[in-house]
Amino acid sequence: MSGAPTLHQVARHAGVSRQTVSNALNAPERLHPDTLRHVKAAIDELGYRPDTRARGLRTRSSGLVGYCVLGHQAGSVNTFMDEFLHGLCNAVERTGRHVLVFTAPPGRPGLEVYDDLLARRTVDSFVLSHTHPGDVRHDWLADRGVPFVSFGRTTRTPASAGDQPGPWVDVDGAAGTAEAVAHLVARGHRRVGFLGPPEGSPVGDERLAGWRRACRQHDLPNSESLVLRCHDEQGNTPLGLPRLFELAEPPTALVAANDALALACYTELAALDLRPGRDVAVTGFDDTPSARTAAPGLSSLRQPVERLADRAITLLDDAAARGPHAEHPGELFTPELVVRDSTAPAA
Amino acid sequence: MSGAPTLHQVARHAGVSRQTVSNALNAPERLHPDTLRHVKAAIDELGYRPDTRARGLRTRSSGLVGYCVLGHQAGSVNTFMDEFLHGLCNAVERTGRHVLVFTAPPGRPGLEVYDDLLARRTVDSFVLSHTHPGDVRHDWLADRGVPFVSFGRTTRTPASAGDQPGPWVDVDGAAGTAEAVAHLVARGHRRVGFLGPPEGSPVGDERLAGWRRACRQHDLPNSESLVLRCHDEQGNTPLGLPRLFELAEPPTALVAANDALALACYTELAALDLRPGRDVAVTGFDDTPSARTAAPGLSSLRQPVERLADRAITLLDDAAARGPHAEHPGELFTPELVVRDSTAPAA
Repeated sequence: MSGAPTLHQVARHAGVSRQTVSNALNAPERLHPDTLRHVKAAIDELGYRPDTRARGLRTRSSGLVGYCVLGHQAGSVNTFMDEFLHGLCNAVERTGRHVLVFTAPPGRPGLEVYDDLLARRTVDSFVLSHTHPGDVRHDWLADRGVPFVSFGRTTRTPASAGDQPGPWVDVDGAAGTAEAVAHLVARGHRRVGFLGPPEGSPVGDERLAGWRRACRQHDLPNSESLVLRCHDEQGNTPLGLPRLFELAEPPTALVAANDALALACYTELAALDLRPGRDVAVTGFDDTPSARTAAPGLSSLRQPVERLADRAITLLDDAAARGPHAEHPGELFTPELVVRDSTAPAA
Repeated sequence: MSGAPTLHQVARHAGVSRQTVSNALNAPERLHPDTLRHVKAAIDELGYRPDTRARGLRTRSSGLVGYCVLGHQAGSVNTFMDEFLHGLCNAVERTGRHVLVFTAPPGRPGLEVYDDLLARRTVDSFVLSHTHPGDVRHDWLADRGVPFVSFGRTTRTPASAGDQPGPWVDVDGAAGTAEAVAHLVARGHRRVGFLGPPEGSPVGDERLAGWRRACRQHDLPNSESLVLRCHDEQGNTPLGLPRLFELAEPPTALVAANDALALACYTELAALDLRPGRDVAVTGFDDTPSARTAAPGLSSLRQPVERLADRAITLLDDAAARGPHAEHPGELFTPELVVRDSTAPAA
């Protein structure tokens, strides 16, 4: 696009100085209204648009928000990350900026990539996702006064949530599983089990806590005997469902901590001659494409990813405006249960 | 990062002129080896890195490759697009550049966004995905001499493939379904049906052509009677499987044009009291996460997305080097069949 008009050409076309064109763009209040109108007409006629890099050198900003993408993880919940990225782009573009995506190795070695992007002034700020306990990026960025926002928390302990540097948005996993229990109770279930990943998974522990809270709230009896924690996150090893169905009072419904576990449980129910959705109601979490294509369709908790992304950018810009030493808010979003045939009314 | 060292500071630190530092970075052959070593030591000591925007103004390049992301489409095959993006980042970063992602409305209105990115010199080149017949972007970019590469073809007709402006990479859908047929024949199947989207879908038509070619090659009898084209791409309406199983010689295996259709067919097989993987073998296409979580696991054709992305960047840079009027190559990649329990040996 070497044919794109320059500031100099606009000035010549309008018969004014370059400074006058620059004022029309950056300090219009300095110009007489007639002059401003005249220069703006020249800008429009030539289709001139300021070079983002030249503006960047002047304002010391790149106009780019950095976002690190992870590789595909088989069977993971990352299937909604393209939706998050799309939401980010929409929110950032509304402010006239763009999103630069990059890859970085996990942990401390990845900080070199962040450092390089900042040192070269390629980006001004960061959106962090795939946040995990002990994430080194938050402190590192906060120490350097770099604006950033986090999708996800470095801790799920409410007492220490305020300790996380920088603003964040996240999904309230506990509210999600509590909503699933309420839905099942409304459909007549009283024995609602929980299937989760091994203890120590922050996401799984939070989702279990929500299920527990709802069981107490709805006075569900002996619910603690209906908890099954699996050997791995994705349900690639047997879940051990027979243990629950050998009980004198087996569950009539199961709340799974993610869609992969819920669908693994479909298979084990079939082996027990139980039909998901008819004999046993099942809910998942994340509303992955698999939830839609499963037979029966899996009721699942949908994360409001686009809204999260939108809010993240607002918090990022607020934080940048208020400076690195201000208090930063965190915001939890409640997932929404998408009801499908896997939670038919109790038989 | 206002503390990042400047070229001026490096020059002062090394006791040389700014031009000498600039030469050390951009024209090292002009300096005496001792001077070069001395300046490089100063660069390393201060941790100086050239500002990408300053370099951009000098070279008239932004160092950024533009890539348009689409919003999430329910149940679509876009689940591998995050993998493609990751592959793009890796390939682009290997050359010291980065990927800028953006959103744009489909069709002609979207060209305004491309135009704006070029006019402001925010990006130097584009990677196009979600390419479709009649895509307006290819001609528009070629007319302007902007380097770009396309994931996907604007036409599937081999005779007119050379007419597509610019280089491209794509997956050979016909080779994929042919591979699925060969796999089923090797497992003892002779009556292999095809499930595809409605006629007129370029992707579906190509996958059907590959199935046809393989049926001829393996001398499968009456295969044409075993073709079922559905009412929609995603299998949300009944596929009409009973028609195939009312035949005197019903299929023992089905090749579906995508995973969604394959999984919809699981449900209809169950209604016919047929077990996928035992009574009827089934293959899908795209190897989506649903293929892994389905019960039984769905054998499916995996697109070599990371390799495609890597090659796309090589073709993009070749095209940029050879200029807008050179002939541009297209490259087809063969998908790989991931075998799971849905294609057990014929009973």
